[in-house]
Amino acid sequence: MAVKKKIRAIQYGIGPIGASILKLMREKEAIEIIGAIDNDPAKIGKDLGEVVGAADAPWGVKVSGDARGVLEQSADVVMHTTSSSLPKVVDQLLASMDVGSCVVSTCEELSYPFRTYPELATQLDKSAKENGVALVGTGVNPGFVMDKLVITLAAVSQRVEYARALRIVDASRRRLPLQKKIGAGLSVEEFRAKVKEGVIKHVGLPESVAMVADGLGLRVDEITETIEPKVASEPVQTEFLTVEAGQAAGVHQIARGLSDGKELIYMELQMYVGAKDPADTVELKGHPNISLVIPGGSHGDIATASVAVNSIPSILEAPAGLRTSRDLAIGFFPPKGYK
Amino acid sequence: MAVKKKIRAIQYGIGPIGASILKLMREKEAIEIIGAIDNDPAKIGKDLGEVVGAADAPWGVKVSGDARGVLEQSADVVMHTTSSSLPKVVDQLLASMDVGSCVVSTCEELSYPFRTYPELATQLDKSAKENGVALVGTGVNPGFVMDKLVITLAAVSQRVEYARALRIVDASRRRLPLQKKIGAGLSVEEFRAKVKEGVIKHVGLPESVAMVADGLGLRVDEITETIEPKVASEPVQTEFLTVEAGQAAGVHQIARGLSDGKELIYMELQMYVGAKDPADTVELKGHPNISLVIPGGSHGDIATASVAVNSIPSILEAPAGLRTSRDLAIGFFPPKGYK
Repeated sequence: MAVKKKIRAIQYGIGPIGASILKLMREKEAIEIIGAIDNDPAKIGKDLGEVVGAADAPWGVKVSGDARGVLEQSADVVMHTTSSSLPKVVDQLLASMDVGSCVVSTCEELSYPFRTYPELATQLDKSAKENGVALVGTGVNPGFVMDKLVITLAAVSQRVEYARALRIVDASRRRLPLQKKIGAGLSVEEFRAKVKEGVIKHVGLPESVAMVADGLGLRVDEITETIEPKVASEPVQTEFLTVEAGQAAGVHQIARGLSDGKELIYMELQMYVGAKDPADTVELKGHPNISLVIPGGSHGDIATASVAVNSIPSILEAPAGLRTSRDLAIGFFPPKGYK
Repeated sequence: MAVKKKIRAIQYGIGPIGASILKLMREKEAIEIIGAIDNDPAKIGKDLGEVVGAADAPWGVKVSGDARGVLEQSADVVMHTTSSSLPKVVDQLLASMDVGSCVVSTCEELSYPFRTYPELATQLDKSAKENGVALVGTGVNPGFVMDKLVITLAAVSQRVEYARALRIVDASRRRLPLQKKIGAGLSVEEFRAKVKEGVIKHVGLPESVAMVADGLGLRVDEITETIEPKVASEPVQTEFLTVEAGQAAGVHQIARGLSDGKELIYMELQMYVGAKDPADTVELKGHPNISLVIPGGSHGDIATASVAVNSIPSILEAPAGLRTSRDLAIGFFPPKGYK
């Protein structure tokens, strides 16, 4: 095989997930990291390797606050990790595609935007096609355990009448921002207030429901979602905080896909500190009934960076347009030296 | 959405799997079965629906022994289920592609033919490209539980050092030909003699090892395979036969992928009557360690027909050439009426 040019990648957003993606990309011989964008003054101008705390820093690439200047290098792929909100990031995605780059984004609302933001979805698809590039929103959830894995399991099914996914995540050993984001240590009242403010929420369950509905041909006409606190029945101590009995330990979210009021899809996320039996479970009812379990579950941060980086070969080969993890044969990005 | 033309399908081979595929295709509104080929005089000339024992027979399509005559209708897809042996079926596959049809085949050796039959793989790929069509060999195993599912799970992995798949199938409720094919009821000596003759063997483990090796970037330079009898420790009675204690109850096959003698991939198939804990299990060691279980396992006959039919949309959209289940985003073929 001839020596291939490296895949030139730009990182757009250097939060915890962006940093994890960068460190993983650094391990792949086929990828060259040519630029990085962040709006944090504490990061701008610093060496990228140092900002992400890499053992092999410095990397010789500086973090820039000038998005357009960095994007103009026209990377093969932009790894985008700035926000869960599609309306907030649509201009960043368009700017990336306008210079001819494919995009892999962890924006949860991009994972399957056709029901919630049909106009933005059309605009992004049109821009991608005009620029001859492809983009996808993906990650572990949405993007994998509650949608891609459900649809993949359905390959062994002749008929599917009902789909259920349950993800139980023990947030005890996750980073502090995540423990705070799920409301661990708040009173139940504080928790509910923050839900109303829109501060506490795992984004993406309705997107997974919509992807599974279309993927399995289940005629879902309504998607509902509830967010409740998971209340601690005994004190829980993490590295960062303490949750007393009676306080919120995390979130308990349920999304349902209904057809004329009848439940066809059920997705439940329990993400809390001290979770007893973490696991990802998928169940399909139909012919045959079949289920799948990932004991212990997939680790959120590791897995989201993995899915994003592992999606790079697929998105580079995909037809131009807005893609979803449903369309892509996600595999594994080969390690150093493997052709 | 505009009304689409139906997908025109021809069935090539009407054994148990072919019949199962036909009945499943019949449930899909988007598919029209336009012809069927078999060389069994007892089937030729009969109505296809009657041959497969369909409740809604007759179907108005007759089984023909004239392969070329049927293929000349130039279906969108030929569903091919005649043999596990690639050398035996290569002319059938070429003839199907020569008239412009895509092919989904359950020929196990076609699932990943690059190591065992590199020249045939090149020939098929070339013919597919010349004819502007795609072909794939797939099914539940090889094609799904021991390869596609392993590679799909690796999407949440940052590094994979070792892959293991274990499939335990209870053959008690499977069809008689299968129970015989796995040697149930033979003495251990008879079993070993039939293994030597090449009569007893589940085909496809080395193909799965090769697909996983390339999919995960594991540098496998040698693939080994062993076939032993699973000996009954107590009598087992099925609908069709009795296995006494001490007799063979089925097969126990192990394939290994080695690198300089070190095991990187391990695949174990236990398919026997009276199996205690049927399940499909996948394990990846690396970062992170992760596993996946399908409790009860996927039912071989149902699942193979499912994977084949569910692969139709992917193969019709795939770039021309020889594809494998690794490349395809296998999902679910939409049910009647779902667009």
